[in-house]
Amino acid sequence: MLLSTEPARAEIIEAHKKVKKFVHYTPTFSSKTLNAILGCKIFFKCENFQKTGSFKFRGAINALLSISKYEWKKGVATHSSGNHGAALALAARTKRIPAYIVMPRTISPIKKIAVEAYGGKIIYCEPTLASREETLAKVVAERGATFVHPYDNYSVIAGQATCAKEIFEEIQGLDFVLAPVGGGGLLSGTALSKKFFAPDVKIIGTEPKGADDASRSFRDGTIHPSIDPHTICDGLLAQLSEKTFDIIRKNVDDIIPASEESIISAMRMIWERLKIIVEPSAAVPLAVVLENRKKFINKKLAIIITGGNVDLTKLPWQ
Amino acid sequence: MLLSTEPARAEIIEAHKKVKKFVHYTPTFSSKTLNAILGCKIFFKCENFQKTGSFKFRGAINALLSISKYEWKKGVATHSSGNHGAALALAARTKRIPAYIVMPRTISPIKKIAVEAYGGKIIYCEPTLASREETLAKVVAERGATFVHPYDNYSVIAGQATCAKEIFEEIQGLDFVLAPVGGGGLLSGTALSKKFFAPDVKIIGTEPKGADDASRSFRDGTIHPSIDPHTICDGLLAQLSEKTFDIIRKNVDDIIPASEESIISAMRMIWERLKIIVEPSAAVPLAVVLENRKKFINKKLAIIITGGNVDLTKLPWQ
Repeated sequence: MLLSTEPARAEIIEAHKKVKKFVHYTPTFSSKTLNAILGCKIFFKCENFQKTGSFKFRGAINALLSISKYEWKKGVATHSSGNHGAALALAARTKRIPAYIVMPRTISPIKKIAVEAYGGKIIYCEPTLASREETLAKVVAERGATFVHPYDNYSVIAGQATCAKEIFEEIQGLDFVLAPVGGGGLLSGTALSKKFFAPDVKIIGTEPKGADDASRSFRDGTIHPSIDPHTICDGLLAQLSEKTFDIIRKNVDDIIPASEESIISAMRMIWERLKIIVEPSAAVPLAVVLENRKKFINKKLAIIITGGNVDLTKLPWQ
Repeated sequence: MLLSTEPARAEIIEAHKKVKKFVHYTPTFSSKTLNAILGCKIFFKCENFQKTGSFKFRGAINALLSISKYEWKKGVATHSSGNHGAALALAARTKRIPAYIVMPRTISPIKKIAVEAYGGKIIYCEPTLASREETLAKVVAERGATFVHPYDNYSVIAGQATCAKEIFEEIQGLDFVLAPVGGGGLLSGTALSKKFFAPDVKIIGTEPKGADDASRSFRDGTIHPSIDPHTICDGLLAQLSEKTFDIIRKNVDDIIPASEESIISAMRMIWERLKIIVEPSAAVPLAVVLENRKKFINKKLAIIITGGNVDLTKLPWQ
């Protein structure tokens, strides 16, 4: 059964036990040169090496493992044009059940191919919120599929929490964990793991200035919608939900925006120094470090590298 | 003292003990999807994560640790416009001694910056073989620096051999190890490690068709010069030396060329599937697998990912 309340300590431990058999235990990378340049010690948790190329697989597989065999038969469904869609498709395939992924007709071929490669069944909608919701509701009604929201779902949040849990088990004495925030699934999961497993660590959400609804929401104590966001971080266009915002409000220390210019610099720095491929969204935490050097000087940081799914023919520095 | 004869088993073991404190123990990566596509099991030894971004640091540091403190004072010198120059510069810096790197005036700024970033002292020559040798000889005569050839040097070869030694210690039951071959330092080191530590494994050298002097030399039993090579693999333009060819002839099972088209496909496949940055030269072994599927079907392979130093503004698929 999907969790119906905010994940408790035992539920995150349970989630981690369950998903361990399915997710990659991703390595943490660091670079002496980068640390010397920045004057702090950074551990990059490489979820770009996670199955389907992003942390989203943790939440998707945990949701899938939380529902009954009876529900499995009818499949799972979601709306997502990005990493969650691919993650849910692969999660469903591990149990040989259908995953219905609602996507706008205008989707880029590369994203379509990713979902199909993992066996997802794409159902097209018009590129409007109304059409997306209507199409999804229809799939759920007709097929009896279980809807797995990309982030407004406590089982998904518990799954994402396992990433920070691994960080805390591996690295002692951290001052900060920095994670990007879009809809807030990863950030709220990270904040819960901090609360239960590393209460002294500060959690910083990071987002593009051109999509800074989360930092404004955090500051004002009320959810601001994400209206007409402008950023290359296509993974961070969503807005917080009731569930994620409530956890973030109570357990996150700050949400800091970064400019597009810094995000591109940070992305290139990670490619060049760590020799790993990360998507723009994954570079936002390092961009925040670049713009706030004093705050992090001599500190010990973990940064969650959220994903590595990027169109290699369209790089932002070209 | 630099080794004056072909490295024996004990000398490679000794080299590994010495360099261990200085080199990164690099991870081996694999991809279920890639294995499923190719019908074999491939372990990628990620020397792109090695210090200075290539395996060359192993040979450079081993050479440096082989000479006396008296020699250290006078510094080390080499001619290299690529990874060996950067590797020797950083190796020298660990002992705070000078590294003189002879480079043609026409060198790309990106390569110059890499050597300077590691503290190397660049000495320019004209872009001809005669000028290079003359300039190097002058540095050696005037400064008393020890010349560390990029590959025609047994201590360098012993250092490169430590990479395959790590592979054999980590992965049992391999059928093949595939490595690129330019001047043959890595391939000869790999072949020696096979001879001493994993005699049942087959060693395959791989090179671009547009620079296939090594496979022609291997076939004909005599060194063919590398004349006017045409390939994007700028790390594989050198030709075999007496020392490397002799080891390769006796201990390597085959040298197979691959087309530029396959090299670009293989490179992109590695970037997309493994989410790691590898230079064109490092993709040649996978290109050979792509072109010789039957040979490797159901086999267990290790591929040495030689380096990850690539100009991110000039990608070959763009």
